[in-house]
Amino acid sequence: MLVVSAHAGDFVWRAGGAIASHVLAGGAAHVVCLSFGERGESASQWLEGKLLEEIKSIRRAEAQAAADALGAGIEFLDQGDYPLRESEAAIAALVEVMRRTQPDVVLTHPLSDPYNGDHPAAARMALEARVQAQAIGVPFADGRVPTKDEIIGAPPVFFFEPHQPEVSGFKPEVLLDITPGWERKRAAMESLPAQRHMWSYYTDLAIRRGVQLRRNAGPNLGLPVEVKAEAFMRYYPQVTDVLD
Amino acid sequence: MLVVSAHAGDFVWRAGGAIASHVLAGGAAHVVCLSFGERGESASQWLEGKLLEEIKSIRRAEAQAAADALGAGIEFLDQGDYPLRESEAAIAALVEVMRRTQPDVVLTHPLSDPYNGDHPAAARMALEARVQAQAIGVPFADGRVPTKDEIIGAPPVFFFEPHQPEVSGFKPEVLLDITPGWERKRAAMESLPAQRHMWSYYTDLAIRRGVQLRRNAGPNLGLPVEVKAEAFMRYYPQVTDVLD
Amino acid sequence: MLVVSAHAGDFVWRAGGAIASHVLAGGAAHVVCLSFGERGESASQWLEGKLLEEIKSIRRAEAQAAADALGAGIEFLDQGDYPLRESEAAIAALVEVMRRTQPDVVLTHPLSDPYNGDHPAAARMALEARVQAQAIGVPFADGRVPTKDEIIGAPPVFFFEPHQPEVSGFKPEVLLDITPGWERKRAAMESLPAQRHMWSYYTDLAIRRGVQLRRNAGPNLGLPVEVKAEAFMRYYPQVTDVLD
Amino acid sequence: MLVVSAHAGDFVWRAGGAIASHVLAGGAAHVVCLSFGERGESASQWLEGKLLEEIKSIRRAEAQAAADALGAGIEFLDQGDYPLRESEAAIAALVEVMRRTQPDVVLTHPLSDPYNGDHPAAARMALEARVQAQAIGVPFADGRVPTKDEIIGAPPVFFFEPHQPEVSGFKPEVLLDITPGWERKRAAMESLPAQRHMWSYYTDLAIRRGVQLRRNAGPNLGLPVEVKAEAFMRYYPQVTDVLD
Amino acid sequence: MLVVSAHAGDFVWRAGGAIASHVLAGGAAHVVCLSFGERGESASQWLEGKLLEEIKSIRRAEAQAAADALGAGIEFLDQGDYPLRESEAAIAALVEVMRRTQPDVVLTHPLSDPYNGDHPAAARMALEARVQAQAIGVPFADGRVPTKDEIIGAPPVFFFEPHQPEVSGFKPEVLLDITPGWERKRAAMESLPAQRHMWSYYTDLAIRRGVQLRRNAGPNLGLPVEVKAEAFMRYYPQVTDVLD
Amino acid sequence: MLVVSAHAGDFVWRAGGAIASHVLAGGAAHVVCLSFGERGESASQWLEGKLLEEIKSIRRAEAQAAADALGAGIEFLDQGDYPLRESEAAIAALVEVMRRTQPDVVLTHPLSDPYNGDHPAAARMALEARVQAQAIGVPFADGRVPTKDEIIGAPPVFFFEPHQPEVSGFKPEVLLDITPGWERKRAAMESLPAQRHMWSYYTDLAIRRGVQLRRNAGPNLGLPVEVKAEAFMRYYPQVTDVLD
Repeated sequence: MLVVSAHAGDFVWRAGGAIASHVLAGGAAHVVCLSFGERGESASQWLEGKLLEEIKSIRRAEAQAAADALGAGIEFLDQGDYPLRESEAAIAALVEVMRRTQPDVVLTHPLSDPYNGDHPAAARMALEARVQAQAIGVPFADGRVPTKDEIIGAPPVFFFEPHQPEVSGFKPEVLLDITPGWERKRAAMESLPAQRHMWSYYTDLAIRRGVQLRRNAGPNLGLPVEVKAEAFMRYYPQVTDVLD
Repeated sequence: MLVVSAHAGDFVWRAGGAIASHVLAGGAAHVVCLSFGERGESASQWLEGKLLEEIKSIRRAEAQAAADALGAGIEFLDQGDYPLRESEAAIAALVEVMRRTQPDVVLTHPLSDPYNGDHPAAARMALEARVQAQAIGVPFADGRVPTKDEIIGAPPVFFFEPHQPEVSGFKPEVLLDITPGWERKRAAMESLPAQRHMWSYYTDLAIRRGVQLRRNAGPNLGLPVEVKAEAFMRYYPQVTDVLD
Repeated sequence: MLVVSAHAGDFVWRAGGAIASHVLAGGAAHVVCLSFGERGESASQWLEGKLLEEIKSIRRAEAQAAADALGAGIEFLDQGDYPLRESEAAIAALVEVMRRTQPDVVLTHPLSDPYNGDHPAAARMALEARVQAQAIGVPFADGRVPTKDEIIGAPPVFFFEPHQPEVSGFKPEVLLDITPGWERKRAAMESLPAQRHMWSYYTDLAIRRGVQLRRNAGPNLGLPVEVKAEAFMRYYPQVTDVLD
Repeated sequence: MLVVSAHAGDFVWRAGGAIASHVLAGGAAHVVCLSFGERGESASQWLEGKLLEEIKSIRRAEAQAAADALGAGIEFLDQGDYPLRESEAAIAALVEVMRRTQPDVVLTHPLSDPYNGDHPAAARMALEARVQAQAIGVPFADGRVPTKDEIIGAPPVFFFEPHQPEVSGFKPEVLLDITPGWERKRAAMESLPAQRHMWSYYTDLAIRRGVQLRRNAGPNLGLPVEVKAEAFMRYYPQVTDVLD
Repeated sequence: MLVVSAHAGDFVWRAGGAIASHVLAGGAAHVVCLSFGERGESASQWLEGKLLEEIKSIRRAEAQAAADALGAGIEFLDQGDYPLRESEAAIAALVEVMRRTQPDVVLTHPLSDPYNGDHPAAARMALEARVQAQAIGVPFADGRVPTKDEIIGAPPVFFFEPHQPEVSGFKPEVLLDITPGWERKRAAMESLPAQRHMWSYYTDLAIRRGVQLRRNAGPNLGLPVEVKAEAFMRYYPQVTDVLD
Repeated sequence: MLVVSAHAGDFVWRAGGAIASHVLAGGAAHVVCLSFGERGESASQWLEGKLLEEIKSIRRAEAQAAADALGAGIEFLDQGDYPLRESEAAIAALVEVMRRTQPDVVLTHPLSDPYNGDHPAAARMALEARVQAQAIGVPFADGRVPTKDEIIGAPPVFFFEPHQPEVSGFKPEVLLDITPGWERKRAAMESLPAQRHMWSYYTDLAIRRGVQLRRNAGPNLGLPVEVKAEAFMRYYPQVTDVLD
């Protein structure tokens, strides 16, 4: 599982449960942070008069701790935020990560977010990199042509939930049961002390999505009262051999 | 698996592969035909001067043979077509079928079809019956209140592909591999001799959807050259504990 | 050309130019008014204390005069308005009209109008009648089965412009040059004295759509300064052998 | 303010804050319940073996208590639920209520809800009644023609939030600050003991919509930490003389 | 009120009434023109053989006169048109303007216009600048970090009406009464002599939108016969404490 | 007729029938290939170890042969693929082509394709070039201002069908009868030996669209059994003086 995150904290709030549950089920997860969220999501630190490099360093350490809590690997591409701009360099770096990690599934932001243009920019780069990484004719950044084993297949892409879902055109197409990974997600959120007000917000959201999961999964009788869930959209059709 | 079909032949062309594959995997499938398609889909028989009851009888026998070929049970509600009208009686009959068969999944037509209003009417009744069948406060047609064991859960609903998908707003959200059930589907289609021109049309469609399935499933290298597939839409979010 | 109109005046404001231009080009046009607009579009007459039958008679005479001005035939089904309800009887009457007139093209209201539910109801009935009229298995109201020559083909359907287009989801997909028929349309509008305030409103609209027609038709240089136009949507794909 | 509710409890969960805040600001609010939710939203009472009339009576008393807590008037049309069917009688009753109460604003359910067809049915009837109530040509149920003072204007219509907003196509177009009325809403919710699990669900939702309200209202600095809000959609364009 | 306009004349045709009414009500309005419309909207001057700088100078003077007529301030960023390209420099300039003017409301073009890509480009830059201007971590172009007082809040954004609204996906969500400012708008339009044919076009549009405003505002009885209006869309949810 | 194609083969599969039919009817057609598809659509050649320039040369020869088979002119802009990036240079080249060829109609890719970002990039450039080519104020790449005769009008734009239409939001708005040009299209497809598996795929598609064409064109009785068709979307409203 590869997670492409615009800022250092995004993967925790929006996909932490999916990551932890995947890891607990024996899978491997890797997170790529395109930026540290150093300008757009670090207001309290700027208000304290901290400097850019200091803030980046703090955010990096927090994200590393959160990834550790989830059991995922993490790397930082340091492409800047507010704005995060699409660039050939960032896309080439993502192509390289994808060919190296050979993901079975890719998670990223959805393509629309009226509150933060960095999120769709990250998604566009992740999607473009995924297409380029499949093509044997697209070389690495150093010009080397990939071998047949280095190109990737066509991993499904899931968009995680933005902060204001309806206004961003987000519709929960997949409700994922994250009960197994919930404690790790909570721990990962608590690795981000500057955003303490988000802890309860995203706990409530997990409960809310859990209620909807139970509603869509059949009668409530006999089920645990509280399921935690995360919501996702699919970018490509689901491929399956069973309808369920 | 419960399949709600407006006319006698619809379930064959649009969901025959899903039914046969489900049965071959050990599941049970039951088809409900709301009408025989006696007025709207039997032009050649009217041109030959056949009478209404005669035509209904022919269509019924064909549909029975097709269901047999797929390995599914079938029943006919004889609600009339062109137009098939929503009615309390038909909905109550569907509630009764659902409570009797306790389906894990429901298949029906999508909610829009500019070429045939019977299809959306069937879908609306299937959806309404599914909601009513869940409610312990909704009695059977004879006034009896259901027991806790008679009401149904919340089975997922899949819409099968209409004849002109794009114009009907149909988007393949799920590509189902029907290769295992394909031979049975072909046999079932051949049980419908009056629509012989549809045999190749729906064979081509199965190939086309199969090509798309392979495109969305990863690299083609090493896979069978020809996969057969059927396309579906979901009406409710998918509930899962794995992203794939 | 067959025009299905919910109320007595609708066909004049929304399609009068199309009708007149068609007639002037040698075609025949026939209008069916499902109601007289006696309750919902005759406020001034109710305020004057007129009675229902009186109002219906006034609206009928006005509509007849307007149809005469356009050069079209007209008939009235008197199905009531506010609300105009879908009914088997009204649909059967429309099937009969369609089989009798064998239209090459059908014009009616669009399927959405938040200000007036009679308009979508008229459209739904026109669409359903058109589908039923094609089927040899659908009998006339008296039970007689149609002959091969009595059923209709698949005439294209155009939706004319509602009073508040954007709010009704109306998008001008076809801009029709009605300059040839404009004088007749103006005369027909002037046959409706109770709605005098609409004369300039729909004249301005014809100019506005004309400006858009010129904008979409190429450079303005050398064209007449003022083209009159009406806007339509298509319900079915255009069939053609030339792209233009 | 007129609130048209499909079932006895709907107006509390979805619009209780709007109602209470309106009343506290000096306005009058009136609720019309089309049914008691006796079949579809009273599962626990059916499981206890209660009878239909008993359940209706319980739900009526609860709804009355909730309306009292909010400071609103209430009446019950007893049109049945699961299904609530559109009928001339129910629409005529709503026309009568509208002409009697002369509302400045109408609140009701949105037009789509895949989980409960009664909600859209209530909305369609409210919308149709609102249009009919404006027309001087539409008589009362007893045939009497209304006077000029009895017809209504064109009050704006707001749709309140369904239980699963995104899947129902609900987008928060208006975020209403209900902090003033929050305590009354909480008290009204506590008048509905059978749905105790909803108390915290809708409290969390009010907080969540409050967070979004603050996010859309400008910088958080200096504002109360917790604002409560309800979300609405508009059916018609906003009319205003100030852009804010 | 801050108005971000792609070309020199856009703000007059599309938002002149909003600007003038705002100013007459005691507010301040400031217009930023990203270009002069020197290439794409000055055909007659090119046909007369004028040179680029000459045309820019003419358009600038006209726009200045129009802003004067409306009572608004104006500045020109001279970023070129046909195409107007998004650039870091233009966005930084807009950030600076926003922090300087601290707008309560921002007006700009909508995000789609099949006839003119400069309009969406201006909108995208306005939206991005608005988000950046809120962030204390985003420095000014000279690298200086803003103070807490220099960053802006979250002013609502309104999109004004494009030339061909329906084809551009424009839906009038807000109808603004501009009757108070109408004379100033007319005077401002008359400051743009090269586009004399637009004077009547936009006068007609103001009448048309006014008719719709009256239709959505309640009964026409007793209101002035002619209200002038402009239509807008919202980009973010409305925040309010009253439903009206 | 001008066809703007992202890669060397696109115009054959998607618009070969339109091109050939246009040429056979006496028209002229010109194809512009923005790239050769050298990286993204030449997997087999990369697997054989061919080099970039070699592959470009092969693809160029194939495309030339296909254009010859169709009877169209062709030129290559060699802008690179995977990714094809929008650039001022490519747009200026397209402006020059449009002013030189003065097309009556422009064909290109649709604006959305989740499988290949080069296609929408080509479409965006074609659309922007078409708008710029109309403006007398937009100079040629060498700075020369065009004469009145060199600028173009407003040719209609048609989008051809992408490989996975529904997932790309493609809806067949125009069904074009390509039976006259079919043999030439088949021959052109056979000029592309590396994509032999596409021959039958696009033959089946032509049959499928042909079945839909017949369904939308009226009764099948008496028509040829097999019509070939291609599907298109319109970007601008149709301008016409006849509704058909």
